[in-house]
Amino acid sequence: MDAPPILLTILACGALLVRVGLGWYVSGICRAKNAAGAVLRNIIDLAVAVIAFWAVGMAVLGGNWAIIGQQRGEVYERVFALMVFVLIGAAPVTGAIAERCKFFPMLLAPALLGGVVIPIAARWIWNTNGWLAKFGVIDVAGASALHVVGGLAAGSAAIIAGARSGKYNRDGSSNLIPGHSVPMASVGVMLMLAGWLPYMLAASLMHSAAELVAINVLLAASAGAIVAVIVSHIRYGKPDIMLTYSGLLGGLVSITAAGGLISPLAAVITGAIAGVIVPTATVVLDMLWHIDDPAGGIAIHAVGGAWAMIAMGIFKPVETWGEKFRFLGVQIVGLLAIAALAIVLSSILFLVLKMTIGLRLHEDAEYDGADLAEHDVNAYPDFSQSMIKSYHLRQV
Amino acid sequence: MDAPPILLTILACGALLVRVGLGWYVSGICRAKNAAGAVLRNIIDLAVAVIAFWAVGMAVLGGNWAIIGQQRGEVYERVFALMVFVLIGAAPVTGAIAERCKFFPMLLAPALLGGVVIPIAARWIWNTNGWLAKFGVIDVAGASALHVVGGLAAGSAAIIAGARSGKYNRDGSSNLIPGHSVPMASVGVMLMLAGWLPYMLAASLMHSAAELVAINVLLAASAGAIVAVIVSHIRYGKPDIMLTYSGLLGGLVSITAAGGLISPLAAVITGAIAGVIVPTATVVLDMLWHIDDPAGGIAIHAVGGAWAMIAMGIFKPVETWGEKFRFLGVQIVGLLAIAALAIVLSSILFLVLKMTIGLRLHEDAEYDGADLAEHDVNAYPDFSQSMIKSYHLRQV
Amino acid sequence: MDAPPILLTILACGALLVRVGLGWYVSGICRAKNAAGAVLRNIIDLAVAVIAFWAVGMAVLGGNWAIIGQQRGEVYERVFALMVFVLIGAAPVTGAIAERCKFFPMLLAPALLGGVVIPIAARWIWNTNGWLAKFGVIDVAGASALHVVGGLAAGSAAIIAGARSGKYNRDGSSNLIPGHSVPMASVGVMLMLAGWLPYMLAASLMHSAAELVAINVLLAASAGAIVAVIVSHIRYGKPDIMLTYSGLLGGLVSITAAGGLISPLAAVITGAIAGVIVPTATVVLDMLWHIDDPAGGIAIHAVGGAWAMIAMGIFKPVETWGEKFRFLGVQIVGLLAIAALAIVLSSILFLVLKMTIGLRLHEDAEYDGADLAEHDVNAYPDFSQSMIKSYHLRQV
Repeated sequence: MDAPPILLTILACGALLVRVGLGWYVSGICRAKNAAGAVLRNIIDLAVAVIAFWAVGMAVLGGNWAIIGQQRGEVYERVFALMVFVLIGAAPVTGAIAERCKFFPMLLAPALLGGVVIPIAARWIWNTNGWLAKFGVIDVAGASALHVVGGLAAGSAAIIAGARSGKYNRDGSSNLIPGHSVPMASVGVMLMLAGWLPYMLAASLMHSAAELVAINVLLAASAGAIVAVIVSHIRYGKPDIMLTYSGLLGGLVSITAAGGLISPLAAVITGAIAGVIVPTATVVLDMLWHIDDPAGGIAIHAVGGAWAMIAMGIFKPVETWGEKFRFLGVQIVGLLAIAALAIVLSSILFLVLKMTIGLRLHEDAEYDGADLAEHDVNAYPDFSQSMIKSYHLRQV
Repeated sequence: MDAPPILLTILACGALLVRVGLGWYVSGICRAKNAAGAVLRNIIDLAVAVIAFWAVGMAVLGGNWAIIGQQRGEVYERVFALMVFVLIGAAPVTGAIAERCKFFPMLLAPALLGGVVIPIAARWIWNTNGWLAKFGVIDVAGASALHVVGGLAAGSAAIIAGARSGKYNRDGSSNLIPGHSVPMASVGVMLMLAGWLPYMLAASLMHSAAELVAINVLLAASAGAIVAVIVSHIRYGKPDIMLTYSGLLGGLVSITAAGGLISPLAAVITGAIAGVIVPTATVVLDMLWHIDDPAGGIAIHAVGGAWAMIAMGIFKPVETWGEKFRFLGVQIVGLLAIAALAIVLSSILFLVLKMTIGLRLHEDAEYDGADLAEHDVNAYPDFSQSMIKSYHLRQV
Repeated sequence: MDAPPILLTILACGALLVRVGLGWYVSGICRAKNAAGAVLRNIIDLAVAVIAFWAVGMAVLGGNWAIIGQQRGEVYERVFALMVFVLIGAAPVTGAIAERCKFFPMLLAPALLGGVVIPIAARWIWNTNGWLAKFGVIDVAGASALHVVGGLAAGSAAIIAGARSGKYNRDGSSNLIPGHSVPMASVGVMLMLAGWLPYMLAASLMHSAAELVAINVLLAASAGAIVAVIVSHIRYGKPDIMLTYSGLLGGLVSITAAGGLISPLAAVITGAIAGVIVPTATVVLDMLWHIDDPAGGIAIHAVGGAWAMIAMGIFKPVETWGEKFRFLGVQIVGLLAIAALAIVLSSILFLVLKMTIGLRLHEDAEYDGADLAEHDVNAYPDFSQSMIKSYHLRQV
């Protein structure tokens, strides 16, 4: 890194805007009765992940058995950047289990992700001695170590927790449960876009100085959004707002493996393909697989992250076709290894939680909403609200 | 530029917050029935402008006929900063035609602005070989190339699209159509202020290292806001919220030509004058000229940008009065040339659109709101909303 | 400072996000009838503080009797950073007197704080010739000069203005008046957290290059939030949302004196203790002392800032116990001197205002809300709102 080390810290500060944007997005996609608790969950999730990474995670990542501040040879700028990256990786879970889970049990998820799972994955892929790094896997900004891990942990949580009451009908059809504030969710998406640039720049500074990365991020996100709005218009006859955002966010995730190592044209193609597969995966997960993920984070992070690893394999400039296929295979091995790690560890956690203290709110508490049932608060006490809504039926 | 090139990228990332703030502002000033689509329009407008600038705009700007990434001698930090500047210049249009236009036709506006109009203006004024640059025009951060262009394109669009239903009465009086969330619009203004500082710093790094620029931006915005709140109190007997914001935003635009090249005292005076003329222009455009611009972007960007060019002519330190008048004349020539470019090209676009595929929503769709009519979504499904409001009558 | 001076400017720009987050927080904790005016007050408060610091404050701080731009030997990067710090220090007042005070009289508060009080305190503690600096007081980021000053000015204002109508009952019990949008307040907290990092980094760059500061800020805030959520659960049987935020924000303030000068472990302990005492102080101020501070800024800034000064005294690495007690005494002297300055000057201002032009809205205007009474606007005109709410009774 030829730039002053403080630049890494400054960029990591900017990367925190991803979590801020997420807070609004997740609140916006909840119903009003869960809107206040959704932000609280996101904030406490962040706090637990920070403390877990400080106490355990950095030791796991660096193999240096002490809390942050007591380790030998720490470069604090790098430690801080890794801490913020962990927060980005841990993010999708709160959205996937929104509107139906108890407050305290779920805080073990950021503890596990920030303290163990993401640090192990990061150690494999980012430490020069990590076995996937030595194997040749390239993942500039954590497509696998952050996004696949976070997305699959979110998937485990959503499957094990089960769907929200009223989400699926007896005939197998699915209801759309609209969020209480589409504008709030939308501006959250914009802020995540703005925070993604410093996040990717910070990661590029650490792993490969890449001057193209900012341009590529904007291009991939734009291509993802434009393709998704067209796809949704073809499929549903209207420019669908939430599917467009899943395309945009999928475009952001799809560039996390390659960053600035591929050409802008390749970034546009990568984002455009994400703009097809991520919204499609969102619909398939919901309507065919009946996995209830209110925020759509499984498709965005797990599918987008997997595509990012593969896209890096496809678009990285190499000499021969043989080399290309070999490198593509290496990327897929890395992806599968980290996916297995994430699925196994997070499934164990959520299954143990489910069988012991329980994950779900009581049915009446879910009906009343977590705000009233758990926090004794009304998110919008000055406004007339309708508690029961007729849901839209979505058909395949 | 003596600072590391990555600083330009970091500042341009921060400048994106202007667009994020705009998203909230524009959503807040719309009625609830258009609130979700307003943010979507802003996001897709951004995406189209990015792709247009990548595919065509940078080639137009640099005279280097290839897409970004394939050009010779690109400095990617500079290209990225220009891309973000283009997003700021293209911003006013979505606000000016809010609440009445169809989704897809309007996406040609960012394509034209990002691919052609702003690049031509930037080439004239920022390239060392540009004819206005050689002529002596000084425009540090795009008062003409971004704000006058964007504001006049917004004006063309608003005039050609026509006013919202119910905006003007038969007797020539005008109704105020209040936005659905003044707090959301207000916090958008705050975020635009926060984003304006890195935007101006990035532009100053590119064109003239100016250590005073951050101080001048805060001073001009503060002076604009304070004067506007006093003017509105004198004129209407109350501190008017939206007029105060137009003064603040006008103050921000008014410093874009001079940046850090004038003294802080001159920045205060520049912003204070913007705090008079921009709110006044907002009222005149609405009540006398009957141009319906829900977001007030025409006054803020076109009038504010024109004043910025003139203020630079007045306040730039020179030796003699003769030199001052000559330079002021140069600035006005630059302003008029770029204004003509913007009016001609954008009027052609919107007239062609109006005569072919059409700009306006059907009257019943406008009545229902774009959210329901075009996106089949309710921005706030959990809240009791009133569709029909009695508008305030504004009198001259 | 070994980093390029422009980094200080960039960080100070990021620090402005603290004020942006505050704008949302303060609007969210107001009732809907005061929500629009709350943001306007925050913005104009900012504008007045900027102009006051430009015209008078920097001269007071530097002993260089001229406005900014006319002084000898100014380092503009430092002047700009100080200007933003002043904005952070002046912030708590608008929240403490929300929902009951007139618009124009209150603008003298940022004028006094930005022009006189904070500059004097900063001169004492940050100028190498300041008497507290020479005495040995260490306050990296303004725990005393910004937060104790702002918090105590807010306290003076809240006491002298008196409580909102309906806040306290005849039997001495207190009503909780819930804010109109908990999600808006919550995302404001998240943005303040994101802005706190560049604020603390900027201060550390100016006073003591400290690579640990970013890590310590995240740790202190996280510890404060986690402890506060547990404390509120023990005390009230639920994870209380607003008390958790006061713990988080108290954690942020508690690290402002020490910054990166203490170990991460000490930062965790400092934040954790803030997570107990700041929420407790919030409740005590309200229920026992009957000081009505809607935003809780007195506890967060005054109590949090006082604890920050003491924590610096406790945790700074020194050789002997004698040295530790001596330094702790020095910190307490600095704290008391600055507290006295803030209380005296701000009490005089608010008492004079109360006895002359008056601070309070008329009772009917307070009942109608400042939005309607002073600004003739409805913050949310499209939504059905309930003007009269039954308040929660809070018991000791």
